[in-house]
Amino acid sequence: MFAAIMAGGSGTRFWPASTPARPKQFLSLFGGRTMLEHTMDRLSGLAGGSGLAVICGGRHETIARPLVYAAGATLIVEPFGRNTAACIGLAALHFERKNADEPIAVLPADHFVADVDAFRRTLSAAAELSSRGGIVTIGVVPTAPETGFGYIESGEAGGEVAGIEWRNVKAFVEKPPVERAMEYLATGRHCWNAGIFVFTARTILAELDASMPALAAGLSRIRSAMETSEEAATVAEVYGGLEPVSIDHGVMERARCPVFVVPASFGWSDLGSWPALAELRADERDEAGNIVPAGSVAIDASNCFVESTTGRPVGLLGVRDLVVVDSHDGLLVSARDRAQDVRLVSERIGLEESEIR
Amino acid sequence: MFAAIMAGGSGTRFWPASTPARPKQFLSLFGGRTMLEHTMDRLSGLAGGSGLAVICGGRHETIARPLVYAAGATLIVEPFGRNTAACIGLAALHFERKNADEPIAVLPADHFVADVDAFRRTLSAAAELSSRGGIVTIGVVPTAPETGFGYIESGEAGGEVAGIEWRNVKAFVEKPPVERAMEYLATGRHCWNAGIFVFTARTILAELDASMPALAAGLSRIRSAMETSEEAATVAEVYGGLEPVSIDHGVMERARCPVFVVPASFGWSDLGSWPALAELRADERDEAGNIVPAGSVAIDASNCFVESTTGRPVGLLGVRDLVVVDSHDGLLVSARDRAQDVRLVSERIGLEESEIR
Repeated sequence: MFAAIMAGGSGTRFWPASTPARPKQFLSLFGGRTMLEHTMDRLSGLAGGSGLAVICGGRHETIARPLVYAAGATLIVEPFGRNTAACIGLAALHFERKNADEPIAVLPADHFVADVDAFRRTLSAAAELSSRGGIVTIGVVPTAPETGFGYIESGEAGGEVAGIEWRNVKAFVEKPPVERAMEYLATGRHCWNAGIFVFTARTILAELDASMPALAAGLSRIRSAMETSEEAATVAEVYGGLEPVSIDHGVMERARCPVFVVPASFGWSDLGSWPALAELRADERDEAGNIVPAGSVAIDASNCFVESTTGRPVGLLGVRDLVVVDSHDGLLVSARDRAQDVRLVSERIGLEESEIR
Repeated sequence: MFAAIMAGGSGTRFWPASTPARPKQFLSLFGGRTMLEHTMDRLSGLAGGSGLAVICGGRHETIARPLVYAAGATLIVEPFGRNTAACIGLAALHFERKNADEPIAVLPADHFVADVDAFRRTLSAAAELSSRGGIVTIGVVPTAPETGFGYIESGEAGGEVAGIEWRNVKAFVEKPPVERAMEYLATGRHCWNAGIFVFTARTILAELDASMPALAAGLSRIRSAMETSEEAATVAEVYGGLEPVSIDHGVMERARCPVFVVPASFGWSDLGSWPALAELRADERDEAGNIVPAGSVAIDASNCFVESTTGRPVGLLGVRDLVVVDSHDGLLVSARDRAQDVRLVSERIGLEESEIR
């Protein structure tokens, strides 16, 4: 199968480690490798070499290129981000030339997966299912009434493929308000949309033709220019005229082909905040519940999470329930239960900086 | 009059801004000038040019030299620190050559004075008093049962000099336990020893002769070598054999000459901790009581003090009562009411670093 990793995120949720110049997918948050590298590693045995592509924005080309090159994969550069429908269309064009009927897994570069074997089994099953001409989505059983995710409402059971049960998708729901999210949690029919899709190039390009004709027309122009000296200029010109639309909104919610959902039983997290990372690294806690890098010290401190990308020592004294992040671009000191709002800080600091300039 | 500023402290109380390589007297904690520069500024009109000397350790010569040079003062370098008795002896030798009967004010480089005019009046009065052949100390009326200061017990009133009332000193007391400090606070006779002394070279060298004969013998050797090619080598050799003794312990407590105390009515602080600095800069507080540098932001934060010597933006989110200090050498995140114990952090981090090496 093929795989296309979307590495276009511009996340501000890991400030100050993440910045517009180095978003989360290019951070080494655990295990000494970047999120993008972990994502490529995870696909090993499923898709590799010329069957693996990474799509990133022009701004991040210099960070992405050595990582992608080391994995033997292909780097596709968007001149600028135009949301996931355009990104996926571009990836589909790339793989269409190789084999329009081979399943393509499309997945974000910055998610966490605990059980890689289960992840691979799920993607293999999804690939087999998608080769019947439909779109396969991955649904995560909700554990909380999250309002930051889209939801997939599943319909009747469809059967099993490669030992994994699939269902038909009844509806896609955009990020719901909390009351709605609580209802979804209760139904047992709704799951989180992990943003991972599997389909063939033929299927997704036909759906884009039907649902997003302007994008499809742009993709046709790019197709004609591919592997000519006009390719980059054509992509830039087409992208300049595109509306940024998500694949969920542009295609999934109005798909004409069958749409399936298979359950994510592989320990998925979108790793959306510093506290989520702290949970993931719970095995590094000291007796007082602190996670502190080597060379730093915590005295009379408890339940604190310290991350330093500078290597400078951090000293905690008499504090509790904090997230402290030290990077060359700035310093965050947050209450643990407020750290999901770090975007507020990075936005305000961006504003202050522009005022100082 | 002459003045000798003792800039030999190796303080760890302002970690991570202060380090062994750059102790507090060389930090710009307020007003854009280092503590040493503020101290030299404060003496302007009292002692300057060749009448003003700064004594520092060899390790800090390169930091001190441009500051001292800019003030037109003399830099005296100790090969290494041997506490205040040796430092003051060396300064006395230096000024003895100019005029053995001119009053010398000896004072630490890293204290804070609110009312510079009152400070100058007090020092002028102390100089006049000292020219009668005694030692004059400066006593600070205690406002709390501090255990980090020495105390001066005053005896009977002596009279007035230049409008300032002086008393005889009955006893010096080393840093007392808290119960004792509370008694002292109640007597009205005890005041904090500000570590500022005024005496002539003749007086102090005679006292050193009487009370510290080994040191006095060393000073005699240095005197013979002064302004010869042997001076530096002789100082180094003499210092190598000296016991480190404070002037309080070595001379004051057993002085044979009269010892006087004049009150410090000039708003003195030894500025011994980050919270003390925060108090000093209270006028910089925002509505929520935070002191945060330009370019940094505090969101839902209160009563926090942030100092950054790196210029990197600091983001506070949902925290209160913290001291946060960011420097190129490290990062401190402390509860405000624990920040006086920062030495614990810097010591432990020094230990960690030596283990990593």
